[in-house]
Amino acid sequence: MEQFSEQLYKKLMKDYDSINSHSGINGERLAKRLASIANIGLTSELGSHRIGFSTEEKAAKYLVKEWMAEAGLTISEDGAGNVFGRMQGSEQNAPVILSGSHLDSVPNGGHFDGPLGVLAALEVVEAWNETGFIPRKSYEVVIFTDEEGARFHSGMLGSSAMMRKNQREELLNRKDIDGIEFEEVLHQYGLRIDNFFDTRRSLNEIEAFVEVHIEQGKRLEKEDVSVGVVTGIAGPCWLEITFQGEAGHAGNTPMNDRKDALVAASLFISQLESLPKEVSDSSVATVGRMQVHPNGVNVIPGSVTLTVDIRDIHLQRRDDLVDEIISLAKRISDKRSIGVTFEEKVRITPVPITEDMQIKAISAVESIGERVYTLPSGAGHDAMIVGTSIPVAMLFTRSKDGISHNPKEWSSLHDCVITIHALKVLLESLVK
Amino acid sequence: MEQFSEQLYKKLMKDYDSINSHSGINGERLAKRLASIANIGLTSELGSHRIGFSTEEKAAKYLVKEWMAEAGLTISEDGAGNVFGRMQGSEQNAPVILSGSHLDSVPNGGHFDGPLGVLAALEVVEAWNETGFIPRKSYEVVIFTDEEGARFHSGMLGSSAMMRKNQREELLNRKDIDGIEFEEVLHQYGLRIDNFFDTRRSLNEIEAFVEVHIEQGKRLEKEDVSVGVVTGIAGPCWLEITFQGEAGHAGNTPMNDRKDALVAASLFISQLESLPKEVSDSSVATVGRMQVHPNGVNVIPGSVTLTVDIRDIHLQRRDDLVDEIISLAKRISDKRSIGVTFEEKVRITPVPITEDMQIKAISAVESIGERVYTLPSGAGHDAMIVGTSIPVAMLFTRSKDGISHNPKEWSSLHDCVITIHALKVLLESLVK
Repeated sequence: MEQFSEQLYKKLMKDYDSINSHSGINGERLAKRLASIANIGLTSELGSHRIGFSTEEKAAKYLVKEWMAEAGLTISEDGAGNVFGRMQGSEQNAPVILSGSHLDSVPNGGHFDGPLGVLAALEVVEAWNETGFIPRKSYEVVIFTDEEGARFHSGMLGSSAMMRKNQREELLNRKDIDGIEFEEVLHQYGLRIDNFFDTRRSLNEIEAFVEVHIEQGKRLEKEDVSVGVVTGIAGPCWLEITFQGEAGHAGNTPMNDRKDALVAASLFISQLESLPKEVSDSSVATVGRMQVHPNGVNVIPGSVTLTVDIRDIHLQRRDDLVDEIISLAKRISDKRSIGVTFEEKVRITPVPITEDMQIKAISAVESIGERVYTLPSGAGHDAMIVGTSIPVAMLFTRSKDGISHNPKEWSSLHDCVITIHALKVLLESLVK
Repeated sequence: MEQFSEQLYKKLMKDYDSINSHSGINGERLAKRLASIANIGLTSELGSHRIGFSTEEKAAKYLVKEWMAEAGLTISEDGAGNVFGRMQGSEQNAPVILSGSHLDSVPNGGHFDGPLGVLAALEVVEAWNETGFIPRKSYEVVIFTDEEGARFHSGMLGSSAMMRKNQREELLNRKDIDGIEFEEVLHQYGLRIDNFFDTRRSLNEIEAFVEVHIEQGKRLEKEDVSVGVVTGIAGPCWLEITFQGEAGHAGNTPMNDRKDALVAASLFISQLESLPKEVSDSSVATVGRMQVHPNGVNVIPGSVTLTVDIRDIHLQRRDDLVDEIISLAKRISDKRSIGVTFEEKVRITPVPITEDMQIKAISAVESIGERVYTLPSGAGHDAMIVGTSIPVAMLFTRSKDGISHNPKEWSSLHDCVITIHALKVLLESLVK
């Protein structure tokens, strides 16, 4: 499998022209490191399979810790297995600036989602070492455990542990697909349950967190820019809606005497499409999952259950949109004398990025001569968890065809390095 | 379980006032016979479970054959196990008039679908015996085997065998849910495969077939009439349509940059509803089955596959409607740059009922002082198979709440007896 690592490295280097190498940022080193991590948990489809709390995730952490040590960072770990590589600042009692991401992946995922953010944060240390830059505040490269949540259908458990946001009872009751309880999984991973819920990391000392991540969308590609400044992280609301009509024989029930739950659901879905733009450009609403009952070819659907995924980076706008969507479903069902019920499955608070942090990120992008493009993050990230009480910024790297969570996930080395240049300037404005 | 039979009999008799008993038609006898058949294959939910080619179906046939013999009919069976009880007409070489239905049921079905048609045809013989009526043409009460097709997902195998319409190769390859092949099932049932495909019943001698059946819909109930005259038997076309869009992240894909297959499918379903009435009052189109892929809450649907069930009693109208539906799907997918493919799963020719047969049936209903109401049959029946080359008529009996294929299936004894009165007059116009 060493062969793949070599291939990935070569593919990354293929069209790469070294960018401003006297900054100390080294594209070749980044490519080698991305390729080395990709080798851990490599699947037959050439994807990454490093599930949270797996030996593969742990192995990837070991590898990065080696590089951290080589770069002179002081390494510590908290009760959730989150890794911190610290570069001591010149001023003893100044607050800490954090940057990083995660090393776990979804099953058969890509090679950029997570590792790029960790390696970008580390590459800034390498650059500072080469150029002799010493930050005033301390700086830490962080690797959060289990961002994807593939094992317990949760996600962001490491960053949530640091922020004391995990629900102890709820997690203790969870089992993975093999029926192994959360506590046992932690034990196998070398962690203790009590430490997991009390990671003892002082939050007061953390002043800001910056995360680099691939976009997982096509906006940057369409705009032809390498790096984007994130304006906020959308919080999803998952609204399960059931339309209750009346089943009947498809042949013997005249068209004018039906209570077809699927026709009602279809009117709802087709009218839903135009609602988000009435609220804001960053709003989205999607019906991705839908079940028809009884789902027989010759039976008029008696009921339809679907889930609407509603997102915006602004809490009020998102909640307004949720209300509009509920009204739409009620209007349609009232008009057709069909029952409708609602169940809220998820309602996560969106994390807006402060104007101050956005301005700093925009200035960083400008200072390296790149065109500024701002965009919301539709997906959740560790920055969404940290951002609930600590100022955060995010930089997105262009994704080819917007594909992610898939072996085909791709960002050019050029775009990755451009993003790290912007990250370096942004971090320098924070640690000074 | 004798208890249930007694209960059903009492429930049927409860609000029954004897109707024109000097006609020789006896409601009490009919109630007893319906209750006796209901006892064979009775389920814990008090439904009928007499699958085609089962010992229960066979037992029900034995019971009816006893009653046929008591009524003086000459019994014969063909290679498909179809039972014919013959009353010899006064003219030796005159053609034969058939009436009957089936005794098998769907799993946990009702007590009227099938048995009512057989017992109605037999009750006319009882009436003729009591009043001394002798038909000029011969008359046969028929019990068709396996109308519901619950065992081999087929249906109307008995009537199809009589009409030489079964596909030998296709049936020989079928297996039931336990993996038992069709030939073995026939063997267990006491039939031989060669005789099944060559039942040797001469079709030339059959002049007409009349079937009494419960409506399995609510039209008669809404019109408050006991019996309806069927104008034709709708043939279904099952059109499978796949809309092919592009999957994407529900959070990271802006609303104006989506190819959402479910939105396209929803537009199609909501616009489909108004198409049948543009073709005819008897046309219907239903999407009963639908699958969304990948069906994840936060994934924009990449493809949707649905099946449209399209029916009319007129072939040209039905086929026009199929064309209109294909055009609608194409228009929507073209407009949204989404792919669409079509696969025709079923296309059964509708069986119109001749004007002559309809007029005779209408006259029969008028002659017994009932209001004439005509309606299409949306469901298939043995008459649909026989009707492809022999003139047929159908009389529908009012169904409570339109429920069928369910233990709750119900028609009042009053409505059943009214229907038999109309059947008797109709048959007398045919056998004379």
